[in-house]
Amino acid sequence: MASVRRIGILTGGGDCPGLNAVIRAVTKSAIFEHGLEVVGINEGFGGLIENNWRLLGDEDVSGILPRGGTILGANNRDNPFMFRTISAEGAVTYEDNSGAAIANLEGMGVEALVVAGGDGTLSIARKLHEKGVPVVGLPKTIDNDLHGTDVSFGFDSALHTATDAVDKLHTTAASHHRGMVLEVMGRNAGWIALCAGIAGGGDIILIPEIPYTFEKVVRSIEERRSRGKRFSIVVVAEGAPLPSGEKVHRAGPGGEKVPGGVGERVAEAIGEMADMDTRVTVLGHLQRGGSPSPFDRILATAFGTAAVDLAVAGRSGVMVALRNMRIDAVPLEEVVPGQRKVPADGELVSFARSVGASFGD
Amino acid sequence: MASVRRIGILTGGGDCPGLNAVIRAVTKSAIFEHGLEVVGINEGFGGLIENNWRLLGDEDVSGILPRGGTILGANNRDNPFMFRTISAEGAVTYEDNSGAAIANLEGMGVEALVVAGGDGTLSIARKLHEKGVPVVGLPKTIDNDLHGTDVSFGFDSALHTATDAVDKLHTTAASHHRGMVLEVMGRNAGWIALCAGIAGGGDIILIPEIPYTFEKVVRSIEERRSRGKRFSIVVVAEGAPLPSGEKVHRAGPGGEKVPGGVGERVAEAIGEMADMDTRVTVLGHLQRGGSPSPFDRILATAFGTAAVDLAVAGRSGVMVALRNMRIDAVPLEEVVPGQRKVPADGELVSFARSVGASFGD
Amino acid sequence: MASVRRIGILTGGGDCPGLNAVIRAVTKSAIFEHGLEVVGINEGFGGLIENNWRLLGDEDVSGILPRGGTILGANNRDNPFMFRTISAEGAVTYEDNSGAAIANLEGMGVEALVVAGGDGTLSIARKLHEKGVPVVGLPKTIDNDLHGTDVSFGFDSALHTATDAVDKLHTTAASHHRGMVLEVMGRNAGWIALCAGIAGGGDIILIPEIPYTFEKVVRSIEERRSRGKRFSIVVVAEGAPLPSGEKVHRAGPGGEKVPGGVGERVAEAIGEMADMDTRVTVLGHLQRGGSPSPFDRILATAFGTAAVDLAVAGRSGVMVALRNMRIDAVPLEEVVPGQRKVPADGELVSFARSVGASFGD
Amino acid sequence: MASVRRIGILTGGGDCPGLNAVIRAVTKSAIFEHGLEVVGINEGFGGLIENNWRLLGDEDVSGILPRGGTILGANNRDNPFMFRTISAEGAVTYEDNSGAAIANLEGMGVEALVVAGGDGTLSIARKLHEKGVPVVGLPKTIDNDLHGTDVSFGFDSALHTATDAVDKLHTTAASHHRGMVLEVMGRNAGWIALCAGIAGGGDIILIPEIPYTFEKVVRSIEERRSRGKRFSIVVVAEGAPLPSGEKVHRAGPGGEKVPGGVGERVAEAIGEMADMDTRVTVLGHLQRGGSPSPFDRILATAFGTAAVDLAVAGRSGVMVALRNMRIDAVPLEEVVPGQRKVPADGELVSFARSVGASFGD
Repeated sequence: MASVRRIGILTGGGDCPGLNAVIRAVTKSAIFEHGLEVVGINEGFGGLIENNWRLLGDEDVSGILPRGGTILGANNRDNPFMFRTISAEGAVTYEDNSGAAIANLEGMGVEALVVAGGDGTLSIARKLHEKGVPVVGLPKTIDNDLHGTDVSFGFDSALHTATDAVDKLHTTAASHHRGMVLEVMGRNAGWIALCAGIAGGGDIILIPEIPYTFEKVVRSIEERRSRGKRFSIVVVAEGAPLPSGEKVHRAGPGGEKVPGGVGERVAEAIGEMADMDTRVTVLGHLQRGGSPSPFDRILATAFGTAAVDLAVAGRSGVMVALRNMRIDAVPLEEVVPGQRKVPADGELVSFARSVGASFGD
Repeated sequence: MASVRRIGILTGGGDCPGLNAVIRAVTKSAIFEHGLEVVGINEGFGGLIENNWRLLGDEDVSGILPRGGTILGANNRDNPFMFRTISAEGAVTYEDNSGAAIANLEGMGVEALVVAGGDGTLSIARKLHEKGVPVVGLPKTIDNDLHGTDVSFGFDSALHTATDAVDKLHTTAASHHRGMVLEVMGRNAGWIALCAGIAGGGDIILIPEIPYTFEKVVRSIEERRSRGKRFSIVVVAEGAPLPSGEKVHRAGPGGEKVPGGVGERVAEAIGEMADMDTRVTVLGHLQRGGSPSPFDRILATAFGTAAVDLAVAGRSGVMVALRNMRIDAVPLEEVVPGQRKVPADGELVSFARSVGASFGD
Repeated sequence: MASVRRIGILTGGGDCPGLNAVIRAVTKSAIFEHGLEVVGINEGFGGLIENNWRLLGDEDVSGILPRGGTILGANNRDNPFMFRTISAEGAVTYEDNSGAAIANLEGMGVEALVVAGGDGTLSIARKLHEKGVPVVGLPKTIDNDLHGTDVSFGFDSALHTATDAVDKLHTTAASHHRGMVLEVMGRNAGWIALCAGIAGGGDIILIPEIPYTFEKVVRSIEERRSRGKRFSIVVVAEGAPLPSGEKVHRAGPGGEKVPGGVGERVAEAIGEMADMDTRVTVLGHLQRGGSPSPFDRILATAFGTAAVDLAVAGRSGVMVALRNMRIDAVPLEEVVPGQRKVPADGELVSFARSVGASFGD
Repeated sequence: MASVRRIGILTGGGDCPGLNAVIRAVTKSAIFEHGLEVVGINEGFGGLIENNWRLLGDEDVSGILPRGGTILGANNRDNPFMFRTISAEGAVTYEDNSGAAIANLEGMGVEALVVAGGDGTLSIARKLHEKGVPVVGLPKTIDNDLHGTDVSFGFDSALHTATDAVDKLHTTAASHHRGMVLEVMGRNAGWIALCAGIAGGGDIILIPEIPYTFEKVVRSIEERRSRGKRFSIVVVAEGAPLPSGEKVHRAGPGGEKVPGGVGERVAEAIGEMADMDTRVTVLGHLQRGGSPSPFDRILATAFGTAAVDLAVAGRSGVMVALRNMRIDAVPLEEVVPGQRKVPADGELVSFARSVGASFGD
């Protein structure tokens, strides 16, 4: 194996606190520890297809550690294997552009590519690896639903935003005897809702992994009333279906469906069935922004430097991971596709039940 | 005038950071400075009607200064002059219960009543004063739309929550080339939207006081694009009507209308007209919760001690206020009813325009 | 074994974010899940000796989850096995009062005792266990230096405070070309300094586990200067000895030595040897206060409920712990005495070096 | 008067939250509203002397609004009228370099100069104005001790940091029955100590403007003890002299005196005289760093745009100011030299006393 001299870094998918910390760690460790050059590919896989990149030096990553967003830009649209093109008539077609993408990588002189992303982005990374591109993945998702790692960077920061929201709703709910419903992110898994529910002392936690009924939710509220507690805090994951099994969506700007809206349905049901003045807050993209938490900054730094180590060692098709408190590497085929769910009978759910939280089941 | 020996304190209306700071200031200054007893009336005017109260000592207010909510409870429902009763058949009737309320006050031994509240609560306070009850008002509203004072407590804290949200949306918008719409509180006036827009560097600010068109909004977005800025942050007050003049409401739990929803309409319009992936966040009650800001704690402390001074001096029918950086007293009839609007041609709007913000006009 | 009907909870040692979360979790899970009564022992082991306690109900722990401090009080002075008494003449003597303490526990009806504390407190817990008292320990220390658990509650919160301080110093240092020295807690181990150094992007990290010289520190500063970086951030653990081996202390109020002061010595050395305007901040007790982080709240909740489970199961002489991401129980003799140090050649130190941090070695 | 086409901006003195917000507001309003070019002078007056500058465009100030520090750099050392030079032998001499500085300004094409700074920086600005340079000042100081304006930007942000510190110390003090002394900035005036004392509920507030004795301080502590409060929070301004009149200083790195140290002396006195375990925290430069508060961002934006308006209108020798809630202009000779002190018998002190705070007098 010829030794690596130039490494590429690309951030894909939705925003996530810690992306800049990863870019900084990859760049600094590549330069200072391994004497490499670093290519920053702009706009996620879009930049790979359109040959949009720049060299990253120490100065480019100075001061970005505490900042949200990604200096490289990202999107969750472009896929080299299914590249969307729109004809002059507006017809949308998809084509496999991966050959051009790989040729661009060669043109950049990139001998190993670090890809930070979630489910979708890492699936593309896996395919690139299968086509012979040396690729190391990095687990990025606020939802914390990636297989293969105990935790992804971004989750702890999103949890801060969600817990802070529960704290703020709590005092109003208690003073004003309200129901307060907080809808948090989690399209397929309830990690944010569960953890913010425990951390904020939520009374009712509704997640995709545990089917619930409004009758049970209302029973919890009434049981609390019988103990003199005239308010209840409900934390609900955006991906939790209604008791009927129906998944709630909002209409997105382009007509497509975007998640969200279950919070309002839950608030309506509580308002009617429990006769309680109930309000809803939808945190939305607040959970993807802001400065990463210390934990996420350390994790992103560890992941970034470990990814460079793996790339330099000639590894490919693996994702860096945190397993049992140690940095590890797992094959991408163990990671994607699929989502890591909250175990409905696991420890976390059990702790929540022990302190009195109801899952509406 | 016989000197006051027992003072009452009551918090009314929606939640607002600083209520506990007010209760603490009233209680401590009444006890330590004036040697009075303090009656805390529970649940706003509901407690007055139902004779629900307790004596407050120094210990009761210890440690509450930094906490959100109100230890006395509150609601924005009960009005002694229009008390809602529901018959066994479910028929709702309203009756004037003010006589009983005033008799209760006498029974409590309250010789002067301090009332912290907004527009609605202070209107009731004014009527009580007109019926002979010694009343001093205290301006409480996160919306900052009370006449007679330069600023109300609660506003600065709500502004923190809203500005923090703009900050969080900003990095995602910039990285991911998104439109981000943030809907903030402000049913009649745009103070929060305007100030959070300036403080967060919002690109477009939509408030009830300045009519806007979607065409102008989109033109601002396109003008930014022409300068290479592929994202835009929109801050919109929940009370800003649509360009058509239509006021947007959500259906509240009990079937009544609650404000909100304009954010989604604005996001839809931008998504379609500017062909920009645009997301919306509705802050809702987050703006009413949390620990008050230092400014609000100082203001609440100043208002609370000044209110006791006024009550002890035998003043009634006045509200404490901040005017030209000094604590002052203004007659309640100058305060309510009516809301203080953002001057559309005032300094703040002008500063925002100077740094490039658009009001869609 | 007769089943437990009454459980005691006691918090010992210095302050630590999450103590109230633990008290809440123990109380709620004991009442709701196991149908027990809960005895809260006031003022740490002082309350055990002086028979100072109260029954805790659900209402007593309502709303305390996000609050710093401990509603039970604590001190790091009283030890039943070495109880300090001061004679009328001022002579200090120590005596074994453990018999009375155990008798008091029996008088309270406490059949199992949960003790949250650090090194010192858990050493006492271990002795009580050896005398036949059923005891379950709970790892509490912001320093994170307890054996037997991967992490203690309180550490993540202290890390937030320290990282936030590094962030704040960073912008000033960069703008004003300063050296900034931040002295953080860590009497025996450098966990806070190391982790805040990584999370905040500190340039030089000085910890007790890695001997350093001022020459090497200055060389790092000069190497940075040669790359155009005219500032440096130094994070130093209060327990890091000087290069001479001398441990720096401040004179405490009672004449005893309290840790601290190394930060000033480091700043002086840098100021002189590197000719750089260098300022020092000593965080002190800020690191012990404030609302616990989401992670610490979840950990404290898990530990509290697990401790009750263990007590109900008749276990004694064990401490609940987090090991490999699972809640576990470890014998107290594996925990105390002794401190868990940062491994000088471990992963965390290696990640820090990879992104360019110097340890002055 | 020939119309201005090129405006200069310079930030001087110590760090202060809001400097970047000012630079952004000056740049954006100059470009967008007035069609000017903007010269950013680097490193405060040092850049003026050394002709170190660059043109600022919209892109240069994009995203800097929420960031601490100043993108232009600053120092509180260089003075064109007393420029320090060090000979090869190490001899320090001062010379008037103002002629060269003014020539440099002309070379840059700067027709009006905006200077953001405190007492020292604005004194230099005044002298430049007297030499014929068109200069507009901007009040920048966390200490809030500038004459001519009701408040300076930076103060509210520093107050947040100080109040947050009081909050954190409070819970520990209450739980652990401690004295906690917090030393905050304020070399000549006690604004931060006073306002953080009120906002955080400090028990004792020691400021330069109100002489105190340790006996009175201890009496307050004992009076609190008699009411069952076994802890006390002391907030002390670094510039408060000891009761003996002695000003306490630390030895700075270069041998010069830097403020600070009074906190430790107060803690020692309380520890001994009140027999209370008392700890001290010295906030130091934390108060100068971090993201500016919403209020400071709005104020900095208002000041920045108003300064450009004044410069364009041909005004010179004035400072923008906030007076009676309106933006105003005041002559620099009314501003410097001299510091605005806390009125010892003013409203703020009176409010603090009303809620039970002691000033040790």
